[in-house]
Amino acid sequence: MTQPPIDLRSDTVTRPTPAMLEAMFRAPVGDDVYGEDPTVRALEAETAARFGLEAGLFCPSGTMTNQVAIKAHTEPMSEVICEQTSHIYLWEVGGIAFHSGASVALLPGDRGRLTATQVEAAIRPENVHYPITRLISLENTHNRGGGSCYALPELEALADVARRHHLPLHLDGARVFNALVATGQDGREYGRLFDTISVCLSKGLGAPVGSVLLGSRAFVEKCKRIRKVMGGGMRQAGYLAAAGLYALEHHVARLADDHRRAQQLAQALAARPYVTQVLPVETNLVIFRLADTLPAEQFLAHLEQRGIRASSFGPQLIRFVTHLDIDDAMLTRVEAALAEL
Amino acid sequence: MTQPPIDLRSDTVTRPTPAMLEAMFRAPVGDDVYGEDPTVRALEAETAARFGLEAGLFCPSGTMTNQVAIKAHTEPMSEVICEQTSHIYLWEVGGIAFHSGASVALLPGDRGRLTATQVEAAIRPENVHYPITRLISLENTHNRGGGSCYALPELEALADVARRHHLPLHLDGARVFNALVATGQDGREYGRLFDTISVCLSKGLGAPVGSVLLGSRAFVEKCKRIRKVMGGGMRQAGYLAAAGLYALEHHVARLADDHRRAQQLAQALAARPYVTQVLPVETNLVIFRLADTLPAEQFLAHLEQRGIRASSFGPQLIRFVTHLDIDDAMLTRVEAALAEL
Amino acid sequence: MTQPPIDLRSDTVTRPTPAMLEAMFRAPVGDDVYGEDPTVRALEAETAARFGLEAGLFCPSGTMTNQVAIKAHTEPMSEVICEQTSHIYLWEVGGIAFHSGASVALLPGDRGRLTATQVEAAIRPENVHYPITRLISLENTHNRGGGSCYALPELEALADVARRHHLPLHLDGARVFNALVATGQDGREYGRLFDTISVCLSKGLGAPVGSVLLGSRAFVEKCKRIRKVMGGGMRQAGYLAAAGLYALEHHVARLADDHRRAQQLAQALAARPYVTQVLPVETNLVIFRLADTLPAEQFLAHLEQRGIRASSFGPQLIRFVTHLDIDDAMLTRVEAALAEL
Amino acid sequence: MTQPPIDLRSDTVTRPTPAMLEAMFRAPVGDDVYGEDPTVRALEAETAARFGLEAGLFCPSGTMTNQVAIKAHTEPMSEVICEQTSHIYLWEVGGIAFHSGASVALLPGDRGRLTATQVEAAIRPENVHYPITRLISLENTHNRGGGSCYALPELEALADVARRHHLPLHLDGARVFNALVATGQDGREYGRLFDTISVCLSKGLGAPVGSVLLGSRAFVEKCKRIRKVMGGGMRQAGYLAAAGLYALEHHVARLADDHRRAQQLAQALAARPYVTQVLPVETNLVIFRLADTLPAEQFLAHLEQRGIRASSFGPQLIRFVTHLDIDDAMLTRVEAALAEL
Repeated sequence: MTQPPIDLRSDTVTRPTPAMLEAMFRAPVGDDVYGEDPTVRALEAETAARFGLEAGLFCPSGTMTNQVAIKAHTEPMSEVICEQTSHIYLWEVGGIAFHSGASVALLPGDRGRLTATQVEAAIRPENVHYPITRLISLENTHNRGGGSCYALPELEALADVARRHHLPLHLDGARVFNALVATGQDGREYGRLFDTISVCLSKGLGAPVGSVLLGSRAFVEKCKRIRKVMGGGMRQAGYLAAAGLYALEHHVARLADDHRRAQQLAQALAARPYVTQVLPVETNLVIFRLADTLPAEQFLAHLEQRGIRASSFGPQLIRFVTHLDIDDAMLTRVEAALAEL
Repeated sequence: MTQPPIDLRSDTVTRPTPAMLEAMFRAPVGDDVYGEDPTVRALEAETAARFGLEAGLFCPSGTMTNQVAIKAHTEPMSEVICEQTSHIYLWEVGGIAFHSGASVALLPGDRGRLTATQVEAAIRPENVHYPITRLISLENTHNRGGGSCYALPELEALADVARRHHLPLHLDGARVFNALVATGQDGREYGRLFDTISVCLSKGLGAPVGSVLLGSRAFVEKCKRIRKVMGGGMRQAGYLAAAGLYALEHHVARLADDHRRAQQLAQALAARPYVTQVLPVETNLVIFRLADTLPAEQFLAHLEQRGIRASSFGPQLIRFVTHLDIDDAMLTRVEAALAEL
Repeated sequence: MTQPPIDLRSDTVTRPTPAMLEAMFRAPVGDDVYGEDPTVRALEAETAARFGLEAGLFCPSGTMTNQVAIKAHTEPMSEVICEQTSHIYLWEVGGIAFHSGASVALLPGDRGRLTATQVEAAIRPENVHYPITRLISLENTHNRGGGSCYALPELEALADVARRHHLPLHLDGARVFNALVATGQDGREYGRLFDTISVCLSKGLGAPVGSVLLGSRAFVEKCKRIRKVMGGGMRQAGYLAAAGLYALEHHVARLADDHRRAQQLAQALAARPYVTQVLPVETNLVIFRLADTLPAEQFLAHLEQRGIRASSFGPQLIRFVTHLDIDDAMLTRVEAALAEL
Repeated sequence: MTQPPIDLRSDTVTRPTPAMLEAMFRAPVGDDVYGEDPTVRALEAETAARFGLEAGLFCPSGTMTNQVAIKAHTEPMSEVICEQTSHIYLWEVGGIAFHSGASVALLPGDRGRLTATQVEAAIRPENVHYPITRLISLENTHNRGGGSCYALPELEALADVARRHHLPLHLDGARVFNALVATGQDGREYGRLFDTISVCLSKGLGAPVGSVLLGSRAFVEKCKRIRKVMGGGMRQAGYLAAAGLYALEHHVARLADDHRRAQQLAQALAARPYVTQVLPVETNLVIFRLADTLPAEQFLAHLEQRGIRASSFGPQLIRFVTHLDIDDAMLTRVEAALAEL
């Protein structure tokens, strides 16, 4: 009897549960380009409410919500301050330059987390040779930082810098619910600190497609035109939005399970002689470094033969991600596979 | 007893039939950013096959398929030749300039249709002051031209100009199936003439979301990066793609009914004294002009009171669109409403 | 004895007179990127004063002054209203799309001149599918229109449309002094009507290099950053500016001579059987159409053999330009050459 | 008797010598947009010959030559590898993003100098989430690195990386003659290693305006259109080019004097208790750090009162630049001023 494959590559690979699928199937829909899809509207309102922001905009991906927000906050010849391994800079195909004609001030973070001092020092003084700083963007949890989370006081200090310099503060919240669950923070505190938040539904939450961009009503209104030019205006998108609504209700608290399983994987890895480093695990991402004697390709092939998939994340770096479709039985299989090597 | 609303604003407003919905929620899915959604792959292959092209790319909208194609075909400081009322220029938020930094050579068409002679004369000679012509883009049926269709010989002449000047020829085929059904042309003839085709599933075909961009394998490969930067990389998109597959099988031939009903509306309109002009009807769009004595707002309000919605399309211009959700009983109601005025 | 060549291709080909060269040679200079070149400052102030505007910015070309202004007035996804043969659209390498990511609404003018009614109808209504109209740009005299001039009441009507719609009005004044001299208008009236004006020094005025962009102090301040990114920040540019200052003092009134000579050429051309049309001549440009029996290449070669150069301006269209380096003796030679054909 | 002001802010502030001025105003000129200015042509050819490259393009600034080159080498969604304090990234108003829509991979250099190993590691692997690496750009001497120079073997190693990865190698040679003079390298060796070089005439060489972009004939041809769209097409630019030609002949060898004087300044500074660090001086730039007890504003004001100007270069960092207009008597005055503090 073949065992089910174990996909640790990303939390984006999840498939809807039967109950989520049922919710999708029953969703009332309309033409969302005309603003007439009731399920999309409900999702936008519900997500905004969770973060204490006024309005939301449903988009087909987190890259779109981030890039739409950056475009709306900046203009050509301006600059975005972000971490040097942030998703918006590193994994969105250079979209900051492409869509917005904006430059980047890249700061080295502590596992992706920036400090208020760092950010304040990176704001450009007025000088005809410099772009104008227009946006500070954070990522929480931070993907390349191994799912690290900000403590609330640090976010408050960063928001204070933003406010004092009249700069908007954006959050790439691809995995923001992981951060909330791991730290016990309340999303509505984020709405006080951030001007705009991109929330992904298709990662830990397990919806098939989509992200919601949150902000003020005026900001979201401005973003509709940008979503349109980028091709994100969808018609009866309520089928997708229904999955998001379902996930908000049913799949947030359970992220704690993913975090527990990630801890378990981290411990198993730390015990292996061929693992030289495991980044501290705070949420559902486990990033670790292989000894030079074990080529990453060989390690991944070993797992693949046992029905386990994972991602290379740089030279000798591997990422494991726990999610809705990874259960305890699978963890046992992964631990066995690691032990066999 | 209230009657169902009649929405003649656009063929984008259709909702899936029960059978289409059933097909959607039985679809096998996977993470399409990894290229692992079998239903998306099947839709891309099937659509490509219908037009005799090598490969397809599923995107959340027709604006995205068009703009991705334009970006892939051009570079900044180049120019696109298109009709002056074409969708890519007029209704895609200036995306040609925004995404591609490309200029436009705008030609006046005969109800949106360009001639080979016109197009050839618009190709820029080599001159350091001019952008370089890089793309010829047609639209068939032509929306602003009232759903007009090209005859095959004219398309062949246009393709000949493109080939002689080594220029790619793109088709905005938002309603290309309407053109095929109305003219009896075969999609595979289009694959011989056009380098790339954007096919919309959410208009006459009745799918809820999505378009497919067709072209050579190498072209589609190049477009994946552009789709990614624009935020069109979706995860388990197979639910949407399944609707498209269903529509290709079940909703193409029935477009003839939409066309017949559009003719019937055109005749009813032509008989009204307050209608000064009805554009010739070739497919499912009916564009007509109101006498100056009847303000468009008053006309639309009169219909609205009877549960009928339509679109203003310019000063005193109105557009009626027939589609999957318009039946003969509704037509009778529309005719009655027109007669009452 | 060889005769001096006669260059009717453009008024850009002029060389400084000895007196202008002397003024250049003696100019005090400084580093203009630091704002310390006194001659550049004097030129900017003097040009602004001539048009009753607050400030000026010296740039290496008229393409730069126009494109900097367009960039400053617009943002990506906005639109510029201009004539369909205007220099900013047709001869600046698609710079509106390239630099500004802005779309164009192209209107057919009467020899390049737009009416207030036309322009008002081209302003886009609010709609998520449309770019936002952000700029109206005129050209006076209009190059492709054969050096045609606007009457003051029409400019006033256009300025009124701009004001009512809160849109800035830009003037491409590459040959604005020709317009002023031909119509007797006062530049300070232009300063009341236009928000920004691009004034060229290297055309009829005879300076070797440069244009000045005029506007409010705040506008010019904003434009300095755009000039910098485009590479227009020059160091000891006072040598060039000195020529412009000299030209403003000594070469404006004499444009009437160029206009008289252009009239004389037009009459000579009208008398030739192989000329089928001469555009009305209002200033220093003479655009005429050759009969199909006389290929443009053959006509230009005939002139070239007699030491006379002119420009092709489209199929069978030729442009003659009178300027500082064309005198009456040369005109006699041109007339003889035309008669010989 | 007032003493002449001493301007150590930049080598861009120099004024032409009488002999250079004489050369400028005797220059034969023509319309360079038509390619007819003999002095511009001579300068382009001469500069290209000095570096063993095929062709040159005269532009009004080094920002323009750099940005034109970057635009020609890249396309939107591609990436430029450069040092994190390089002029093209830091002092050209975010032009890489603005003009080219290109991303940047920013590497930390040793006083601005990158190693082949660093650069090779920064080349992006093929991945739909990444921009495509398209250009490696170096700066020599490196401004922010304190005028540091590359040794030839390191340049050879970098060129080898570029070649193996089929990437063009660009040199921002704003002060390349300082590098050549300081190291004894031959410009023609650079032509073997670099695909394109931007050479500035208005810094150490003492010409008032202009830079030359060098490359293959085909590359320069392509760049003419980009220069045009950026507004760098000038008319009788030979007056400026003549200064460049004069400088190439007369002002290169004398850069050794500037370097000697910079050494002298560095020694004087190192002896001051309020100077905590002086970057090693290799050419004509002296960058030093003030003790926290001496605010930069106070230091600069002290100099200003003695007729000496210098630039702030970051918190507590000051830059002194020696050049054509700084002589030994001035140095004595600067040393006295430093001693007085």
